[in-house]
Amino acid sequence: MNFNGNKAENVKIAYVGGGSRGWAWGLMSDLASCDDMSGDVYLYDIDYEAAKNNEIIGNKYNELEDAKSVWHYHASKTAEEALTGADFVIISILPGTFDEMESDVHTPEKYGIYQSVGDTSGPGGIVRAMRCVPMFEEIGTYIKNYCPEAWVINYTNPMTLCVKTLYRVFPEIKAFGCCHEVFGTQKVLSQALDTICGIKDVERDDIKVNPVAVNHFTWITEATYKNMDLFPIYKEFADKYWEEGFIENVETNWMNNMFASAQRVKLDLFRKYGYIAAAGDRHLAEFCEGKWYLKDPETAHSWKFGLTTVEWRKNNLKTRLQKSEDLRSGKEEIKIDCTGEEGVAQMRAILGLSELVTNVNMPNLGQIPNLPYGAVVETNAVFRSGTVKPIFAGNIPEEIYALISRVCIQQEALNTAIAERNIDKIFNVFTNDPLVTCSLDEAKELFKEMVLNTKEYLTSYDLTNL
Amino acid sequence: MNFNGNKAENVKIAYVGGGSRGWAWGLMSDLASCDDMSGDVYLYDIDYEAAKNNEIIGNKYNELEDAKSVWHYHASKTAEEALTGADFVIISILPGTFDEMESDVHTPEKYGIYQSVGDTSGPGGIVRAMRCVPMFEEIGTYIKNYCPEAWVINYTNPMTLCVKTLYRVFPEIKAFGCCHEVFGTQKVLSQALDTICGIKDVERDDIKVNPVAVNHFTWITEATYKNMDLFPIYKEFADKYWEEGFIENVETNWMNNMFASAQRVKLDLFRKYGYIAAAGDRHLAEFCEGKWYLKDPETAHSWKFGLTTVEWRKNNLKTRLQKSEDLRSGKEEIKIDCTGEEGVAQMRAILGLSELVTNVNMPNLGQIPNLPYGAVVETNAVFRSGTVKPIFAGNIPEEIYALISRVCIQQEALNTAIAERNIDKIFNVFTNDPLVTCSLDEAKELFKEMVLNTKEYLTSYDLTNL
Amino acid sequence: MNFNGNKAENVKIAYVGGGSRGWAWGLMSDLASCDDMSGDVYLYDIDYEAAKNNEIIGNKYNELEDAKSVWHYHASKTAEEALTGADFVIISILPGTFDEMESDVHTPEKYGIYQSVGDTSGPGGIVRAMRCVPMFEEIGTYIKNYCPEAWVINYTNPMTLCVKTLYRVFPEIKAFGCCHEVFGTQKVLSQALDTICGIKDVERDDIKVNPVAVNHFTWITEATYKNMDLFPIYKEFADKYWEEGFIENVETNWMNNMFASAQRVKLDLFRKYGYIAAAGDRHLAEFCEGKWYLKDPETAHSWKFGLTTVEWRKNNLKTRLQKSEDLRSGKEEIKIDCTGEEGVAQMRAILGLSELVTNVNMPNLGQIPNLPYGAVVETNAVFRSGTVKPIFAGNIPEEIYALISRVCIQQEALNTAIAERNIDKIFNVFTNDPLVTCSLDEAKELFKEMVLNTKEYLTSYDLTNL
Amino acid sequence: MNFNGNKAENVKIAYVGGGSRGWAWGLMSDLASCDDMSGDVYLYDIDYEAAKNNEIIGNKYNELEDAKSVWHYHASKTAEEALTGADFVIISILPGTFDEMESDVHTPEKYGIYQSVGDTSGPGGIVRAMRCVPMFEEIGTYIKNYCPEAWVINYTNPMTLCVKTLYRVFPEIKAFGCCHEVFGTQKVLSQALDTICGIKDVERDDIKVNPVAVNHFTWITEATYKNMDLFPIYKEFADKYWEEGFIENVETNWMNNMFASAQRVKLDLFRKYGYIAAAGDRHLAEFCEGKWYLKDPETAHSWKFGLTTVEWRKNNLKTRLQKSEDLRSGKEEIKIDCTGEEGVAQMRAILGLSELVTNVNMPNLGQIPNLPYGAVVETNAVFRSGTVKPIFAGNIPEEIYALISRVCIQQEALNTAIAERNIDKIFNVFTNDPLVTCSLDEAKELFKEMVLNTKEYLTSYDLTNL
Repeated sequence: MNFNGNKAENVKIAYVGGGSRGWAWGLMSDLASCDDMSGDVYLYDIDYEAAKNNEIIGNKYNELEDAKSVWHYHASKTAEEALTGADFVIISILPGTFDEMESDVHTPEKYGIYQSVGDTSGPGGIVRAMRCVPMFEEIGTYIKNYCPEAWVINYTNPMTLCVKTLYRVFPEIKAFGCCHEVFGTQKVLSQALDTICGIKDVERDDIKVNPVAVNHFTWITEATYKNMDLFPIYKEFADKYWEEGFIENVETNWMNNMFASAQRVKLDLFRKYGYIAAAGDRHLAEFCEGKWYLKDPETAHSWKFGLTTVEWRKNNLKTRLQKSEDLRSGKEEIKIDCTGEEGVAQMRAILGLSELVTNVNMPNLGQIPNLPYGAVVETNAVFRSGTVKPIFAGNIPEEIYALISRVCIQQEALNTAIAERNIDKIFNVFTNDPLVTCSLDEAKELFKEMVLNTKEYLTSYDLTNL
Repeated sequence: MNFNGNKAENVKIAYVGGGSRGWAWGLMSDLASCDDMSGDVYLYDIDYEAAKNNEIIGNKYNELEDAKSVWHYHASKTAEEALTGADFVIISILPGTFDEMESDVHTPEKYGIYQSVGDTSGPGGIVRAMRCVPMFEEIGTYIKNYCPEAWVINYTNPMTLCVKTLYRVFPEIKAFGCCHEVFGTQKVLSQALDTICGIKDVERDDIKVNPVAVNHFTWITEATYKNMDLFPIYKEFADKYWEEGFIENVETNWMNNMFASAQRVKLDLFRKYGYIAAAGDRHLAEFCEGKWYLKDPETAHSWKFGLTTVEWRKNNLKTRLQKSEDLRSGKEEIKIDCTGEEGVAQMRAILGLSELVTNVNMPNLGQIPNLPYGAVVETNAVFRSGTVKPIFAGNIPEEIYALISRVCIQQEALNTAIAERNIDKIFNVFTNDPLVTCSLDEAKELFKEMVLNTKEYLTSYDLTNL
Repeated sequence: MNFNGNKAENVKIAYVGGGSRGWAWGLMSDLASCDDMSGDVYLYDIDYEAAKNNEIIGNKYNELEDAKSVWHYHASKTAEEALTGADFVIISILPGTFDEMESDVHTPEKYGIYQSVGDTSGPGGIVRAMRCVPMFEEIGTYIKNYCPEAWVINYTNPMTLCVKTLYRVFPEIKAFGCCHEVFGTQKVLSQALDTICGIKDVERDDIKVNPVAVNHFTWITEATYKNMDLFPIYKEFADKYWEEGFIENVETNWMNNMFASAQRVKLDLFRKYGYIAAAGDRHLAEFCEGKWYLKDPETAHSWKFGLTTVEWRKNNLKTRLQKSEDLRSGKEEIKIDCTGEEGVAQMRAILGLSELVTNVNMPNLGQIPNLPYGAVVETNAVFRSGTVKPIFAGNIPEEIYALISRVCIQQEALNTAIAERNIDKIFNVFTNDPLVTCSLDEAKELFKEMVLNTKEYLTSYDLTNL
Repeated sequence: MNFNGNKAENVKIAYVGGGSRGWAWGLMSDLASCDDMSGDVYLYDIDYEAAKNNEIIGNKYNELEDAKSVWHYHASKTAEEALTGADFVIISILPGTFDEMESDVHTPEKYGIYQSVGDTSGPGGIVRAMRCVPMFEEIGTYIKNYCPEAWVINYTNPMTLCVKTLYRVFPEIKAFGCCHEVFGTQKVLSQALDTICGIKDVERDDIKVNPVAVNHFTWITEATYKNMDLFPIYKEFADKYWEEGFIENVETNWMNNMFASAQRVKLDLFRKYGYIAAAGDRHLAEFCEGKWYLKDPETAHSWKFGLTTVEWRKNNLKTRLQKSEDLRSGKEEIKIDCTGEEGVAQMRAILGLSELVTNVNMPNLGQIPNLPYGAVVETNAVFRSGTVKPIFAGNIPEEIYALISRVCIQQEALNTAIAERNIDKIFNVFTNDPLVTCSLDEAKELFKEMVLNTKEYLTSYDLTNL
């Protein structure tokens, strides 16, 4: 990388999981829309063909009239090639296939355990972590060996465990994890400004928030717009919409979209605890006691959020595979379609081309004093010229401390248990998860079944005494 | 109080709850057995007649041949009289009657929630705390006004909330809470020394332990006898007896005694987590997820511990009332029957007549760095000459940190909620209790019913919007 | 205050010390140059005439062609009028007159103690704090009573004690202290970029730094420009210029300007400790052992920094008084001459008109974990929409920890000592100051003389046993 | 080691520095006086002949009529032999000879720097640490290799650096440092009880104290006898004797004994700060600003404490060498003459033969929350059955925090500097020592001279650029 005036040239980005059908094209759009950076993107994926496809698609962006910068895409056969000399590493992988995910999400239903996402917490999140962590151990080691100075941005779930693993295998790593759930809550706050105060069209990033949290169980303790405190406004909003839910329009109606919700869980948690739960309802529900919002599909239905089926994901994948082929062949035209993610903005700020405050997942150095030192937490950070420094977020308030600290501490224990490949310790975390509402014996059976369903990816574990 | 050589004379003890039928007589025995202290004991009780009865009984101890010291007992009509000038205050009260306790323990059974004790944690413990805290606010205020320099020993449950309340209303108070549950675990360790190593008759206080805990969910991270580490020995013991349970003799057989257990829960927790859970199984079970050991009476039965019924307590009270009358009238002879409690030993050490290391419940100043500052925790402390100083106990180990910190943080939140008489906040703690395994709606109904059952004692709360 | 689109109108600023000849005119310039805020500035000063003069001068700015906003200036006879309803309070006062300052700075010379500034630390800073703190107790109380929601910006020295006092008398205050010394060091870093790397004209605020410090003994642990680490560059710069000093041009030559220096102290401290001391040499020298850089005037001379005499300040005041008269009368023309301070930028960011990261002095909530909680420290903070939140700055590095912590802890002790008006405790701090190199007896004499010289301002102290 | 009933037999003690003439004989007496331990003592010394001499002397103790146990003494030619299988390791060595010590203590006098002891702090302590730390690195490594489970008791100065080094090279070591200075202060408190209250002959260990400190600059924040607070009594004592000093009898008159003092420094510090400085005046003076008590010999004289000359130590050594020869040959009779040290009592408690609370030097785990984690601090600890656990001592009070934290932090920095063999960093610590009152240039000269004087012991340092 080098600067040419105020432009950064020859930036090298390594993209682990670069064969993605979907997320990759968003990144290509975001990069093409950036006028002060250019360079190379190396796509690395266990599915080399998929990466190759994206190389072809990516390079087509440079021909678009509205592309503001040139990026050369390269599919890499080795991590070494992709990573060596990288300025930035982006990690966005799927640990296993949708078959494993199907087991993660749906096996627990036999025991009355329902999961709305199943990729972060609960039985599904734990077993997914068992698959994912060994992959991140490998990726972290690659980074240590091939590009120790690179900045590393992770998008993979379970976010906390993935980022923790990178720091575990390479403590000097400059890594952070990004998640857009808080953005969604900023949008809800903007809607509250509209419906309660009649202030319209406030951009989500003009809503300033202070997250103190662990990923996907994010809570906001302060929210302001200009010099207004948004808490009283959100209180009115919550009182107004708590019962029926807030539904913006048909497309986002939770009944039509299994990723959507009517925000009832979010508003309920606010009314209970006085702080703003700041992830989608589907995520929030999974961190609460199993009988609260996920007792059974009817309960979830009454709270107006969808349970994402893996069947849908499988069908959707077919659509995306077709689209990938069409983009490659030229049957479907390439267009710039930005993501609203902040990855490119973060890279610009790290290169000193701007300054940015946003929320990230990083080890706790004291930004949240009452969570364990070293646990991966989500707070704001300042990105400026080669530094990403957490903002002091303050203690978790007493009202929600029991909820959040439990999640954080369980994740710390899970990190140790998986690092040691200690099945008994992993099971201890499993049985103490809020969603695991069955008896000890049933939990044992369930755990065994789930682990065996995914054992192809667990070759580094000793499963003999499961 | 004054010293006469190495004897402390004119020691004044105020005993709040001094009308007790049972516990009081043990204290009388312990005091009579102490040869270097003497003085006066003021008995204060809302049931003055009961206190008066104990005055008569207490004074009879002085006539016993084996009494080593003279103590004059006085029933007091006012707290002012009892407390003014006291060197020590002992608090051991029952908050409400067994009717309220019956509701605490048994009402939740309608919702499939079983409690083995119901006085510390779970629905019963929470509602008991609602009754008990206002009483301790009053007692703490009396102490502040009448004897601010006195040392205060609490035995009342819920221990944590009671001690916390005393410090809340009078932060300079010199108070601590005592509980004998750890002693019981020292005895189990002594039994392990016997059965595994053949070392017989080791006194429980020759087993040295390091508790890091909250009361009744006490855990021990180090245990030694002479210079032996007892953990490997306890591991053998646990492996040997985990399945069948360890039953010392007929009298302590859990089937014959609803206060007893076969230690299966204790051994199971050790095998799971590697640290020694150090309270009775009936207590331990109540802090774990409801489906683990208390799913239903059959599950408790299979883990071989009793569910204490309040009916038994009511019947037992009749026996004790009769005994009280018999002791007073002389029908039953007074005898010295020491308790094994350490209250008198603690007083001696505070007066500088000896030195003592034992476990107490006190606000956390840093003795357990990874629990909240100011929360009441149970660790060892050193008693010497006017000082009680906690020993640095260390962090809660990661394996059990999620379990213990949740309890501790919930109790902190409950303290605030009750201090504010905030019914909604109390309910938030209630629904997040490990034993409350029902749905949110059922929890609401249950809470309402329990609160109304005990409303006579809740006059300082606004229950209109319950 | 209200918003009109993206402009803030009717902003009310109260300026305590608003009779200033100099600093006030800079603020007027900065406000006039701001195009998205307008409103009223209330000038409050114990010298009402001076405030009145500035009212006249201030209102003339509105007539300038290049004024981008309108601000109405009002001299206030009472603090109540000035402060009631204020959105912002600016405090910039001189505690006492230059006669008192003369004693602060020059009396210690009798005992071989030389001070280059004498307003923050050392004998002069301590006695100045004795005068200043009672004034800030009064100001803090006014704010509490008249405008508790206002944001308060302090510029008065001793900065740490002033800000601490505000928080002491009104813990909920939204106050911070601002100082431009770090800006000067950013300029030195820009000069290093020029002389070492040939990168010219880098703006000081494009140099990103991480201060971990107490005011005026500020140290920087990270410095970057774009994604470059500036430490190796500064090392070359220090090695090159340490011996002779770095002199930019004639005007800033330390021999011609008693506020200037050749940066030798700064570069020496960097070479010794490996971190960037980030205040002017005249300040830095005062926090080090007295025999290092301030042993005598010759030593200061050899380190190429000036000892600011109060005689100069007195003469300069005459010039400024004349200028004040000339500006008022129209003899001298008003012009916009911005200060380079960030007060106005901070107000804009607080109102949500922009976002700003800069260094401020605020109580330590954990932004520097190894300095005492609650001590006023200087780190970066993020200003956005009604919030000012410190950035996590990290521990003071071991190499400089003894130096900085001593200063911080002494200031904490001084705060308590002055709050208690405890002359003995103040003297204890005095004797343990790094500049007080004389014997205990001499220190006692010196302290007495200095206190008596300024006793007119110490009416709230009992000086009888001095 | 094994138990025979309540006696510990075959205890193996390794004594590093076992050729000592003096201290060794005290240990022999203490061991001979202990009736429930017996075993072997291995004497290891770089002067093997001296160790051999002590072997002979030690074994003679077994023949004494009043010896209560049998200990076999063995001089060892190798550390391996001495340490392998040891239950306890005692370290008491002299780093270098009295020639080096002469330079440590007296060279600084050229620059007006006077030291009363010169073995812990100040220029002498720092240079002594440079010699001593490499030796402790070696000893620590031996322990790690030969007896990792042994308990290690250090008596060597500089205490803090020695203990810190052991933990640095072997973090799992079970080591602590012992010092009798606090005992001396307990005796002063006993004298205060006598002179102020007429309570006579109170044993020093019946005075209970709470030290919060670093070794030799020990401060006590609580002192009690029975249930009496000794602070008001000590205040009276200090007011009475501060001016003239307290002199117990002729033998301890400071004018006749260069190790004695009239306690004036101790009492002065108490009157200044309100807490009890708890080491001998000769030590305390060395941690204060150089101009306070050690400005020149006359100042020390006026404060009535002696400056220990190394000439005296050299002469005294001759006497002790002669005594050694006489004891070996039988010319002088062996007798049991106990030391008043607690080493043997500590070993008994560790073996579970008793329980002991006393002050020790150990890494800070939180026992003093406001000193750095891991720094070696002196507080009380409880010795019981295989555990030595610090008692929570509390924060250093604000009044004395600047004094103590500076010492502690400087020692931490010195530890790092010596570990790195970084001469520049060591010099930075040197120049910032309270006793180094000269200019930077003089300090440089002095440091160079002192280092070169002792260079024979500094072969692991690169002194070329000194």
